Amino acid sequence: MAPDYRFLRACRREPVDRTPVWMMRQAGRYLAEYREIRAQHSFLEMCRTPELAAEVTVQPLRRFDFDAAIIFADILLPLPGMGIDLTFAAGEGPVIGNPVRTEADVRALTPLTPEEDVPFLAEAIRLVRREIEGRAPLIGFSGAPFTLASYVLEGGGSKNFVATKTLMYAQPHVWHLFMDKVADVIVSYLRYQIAAGVQAVQLFDSWVGILSPGDYREYVLPYSQRVIASLGDSVPVIHFGTDTATLLPLLREAGGDVYGVDWRLSLADAWEMIGPDAGVQGNLDPIVLFAPPEVIESRVQAVLDSAGARAGHIFNLGHGVLPSTPPDHVGVMVEAVHRLSAR
Amino acid sequence: MAPDYRFLRACRREPVDRTPVWMMRQAGRYLAEYREIRAQHSFLEMCRTPELAAEVTVQPLRRFDFDAAIIFADILLPLPGMGIDLTFAAGEGPVIGNPVRTEADVRALTPLTPEEDVPFLAEAIRLVRREIEGRAPLIGFSGAPFTLASYVLEGGGSKNFVATKTLMYAQPHVWHLFMDKVADVIVSYLRYQIAAGVQAVQLFDSWVGILSPGDYREYVLPYSQRVIASLGDSVPVIHFGTDTATLLPLLREAGGDVYGVDWRLSLADAWEMIGPDAGVQGNLDPIVLFAPPEVIESRVQAVLDSAGARAGHIFNLGHGVLPSTPPDHVGVMVEAVHRLSAR
Repeated sequence: MAPDYRFLRACRREPVDRTPVWMMRQAGRYLAEYREIRAQHSFLEMCRTPELAAEVTVQPLRRFDFDAAIIFADILLPLPGMGIDLTFAAGEGPVIGNPVRTEADVRALTPLTPEEDVPFLAEAIRLVRREIEGRAPLIGFSGAPFTLASYVLEGGGSKNFVATKTLMYAQPHVWHLFMDKVADVIVSYLRYQIAAGVQAVQLFDSWVGILSPGDYREYVLPYSQRVIASLGDSVPVIHFGTDTATLLPLLREAGGDVYGVDWRLSLADAWEMIGPDAGVQGNLDPIVLFAPPEVIESRVQAVLDSAGARAGHIFNLGHGVLPSTPPDHVGVMVEAVHRLSAR
Repeated sequence: MAPDYRFLRACRREPVDRTPVWMMRQAGRYLAEYREIRAQHSFLEMCRTPELAAEVTVQPLRRFDFDAAIIFADILLPLPGMGIDLTFAAGEGPVIGNPVRTEADVRALTPLTPEEDVPFLAEAIRLVRREIEGRAPLIGFSGAPFTLASYVLEGGGSKNFVATKTLMYAQPHVWHLFMDKVADVIVSYLRYQIAAGVQAVQLFDSWVGILSPGDYREYVLPYSQRVIASLGDSVPVIHFGTDTATLLPLLREAGGDVYGVDWRLSLADAWEMIGPDAGVQGNLDPIVLFAPPEVIESRVQAVLDSAGARAGHIFNLGHGVLPSTPPDHVGVMVEAVHRLSAR
């Protein structure tokens, strides 16, 4: 019989004994045990070595009472399989050697063959599942079409998304052709993770908040919708973005079981916009973890109060935990979530 | 008799023959004539030399039919007068040599004496007024308390505002002491500009959208409110921020005659949140100016449609124009605003 995980119950909006909690980037640099491994290996090497990826995935669950693990990976891992040259420059984040600029560039992209392009990911998923079975479920993830596309178009991270929006506005047919291919890749990538054993997936549309609602509807919604619909009812889907206060109704239209919400909006207001037939995830400001324990506890209480007694809240930060976060403060948060939410 | 400027009429929500338009950073790097001067002088040198500041302030009005000029300056210009060491590193934006970290740092800050600390600004304002009298009114500006404080605390620009929020959360008494001093400086700085002749002011709370509504109310609102109230009815105040979809009602509470809105929210929705007794400014996505002329025109039309026939709309971008913007496209926008809004 499958274990009755608190996290998965919340994804299905079933009652829970305590609010489940996990943290975006919980397998990461704020942990000394992570940095120790990272000191010996490049970031991509860690992603591509199943034993290392599995080890850092499990690390945060040894330290903290998290209710879910999330596989250690990067949203850009499917890119090399598409013919995109991806590296991580020291301290500078991802660099795309051949950003997509033209229709010919888009046409040259290849579909993803996960068994050949990202086999390490399935192996890491199997290793983690074996190690944490009965302790917590495992979340898989992918970048959402917009966020993934923006990296490829900009050549890396971006502030103003000029290349991305310019393609949208000036060559909409190329944009749509590109998003079509990106969506297909994401579908393969997520299905591969699900087949390998992840028990939920999160779609990261981290940068979608840079768009106006009209642009989201026209240029993004159909692709996110297709990705989510293609997963059927296989596993719960968490649809995450930041800065989505004006986009939430459209994200809801695109689909998902649970919606990630940052701190710019109360969970009560977010849930109102999303509607009663979906869950919410969030929404502590990651910077609150730099505050003293008593402040963290009162902010945890405020998030729980805003979510209310309704089933379907997963506690999380509004965005990823920062590398300089004091790990003890993460423990304070996790303990407070469980204690203050006990039914 | 004072000229009956379209821009000032809109600030007062009086009927206009055409919607007035100007652009944040209209005096800037997208113009070759600006870059020519900039090649000979450092950015701070340009700010501090009245003839140069006046010249680049007027440049965009020679090229385009803008309805207002905005004095060439930087929101960080009051900092040196407070005892803050400010430089602009080549291509890296502002660098604060001595970021405020402790209560002692805050106590060491000095009040601004505008006649001694920023006399060049008053002189530039007088030069511009003389040159454009009858052609367009002149806007002065300042950073709002939060945005100005964040630069001083972070030591420059920031992505996550860790130092800023950590001070708020961990040492609220130091935060309030600091904001109190920053607000006083801004009041002196704006009053000095008004006395020198600016006919409206814009308060730039460019980064305030990083805050939750609760944090804005507790840590920021009282200071922005004090600054705006201290100006009385001397000149119209434009209260600007980005990413303020969840903050607009609180910005309204803090005050102002006109509210700047970015592209994440339609002007119709924004105006609904702000209420009928104030104006709105915005809200074209600056990246639309990279699109072909016909797209720019249709987006201008959409903004005008969203603002509707109500008096009190000032057309602008949702944030500053980018340096790589094609200048001709700015002309397309200005012409389209005037033509499509003709009453």
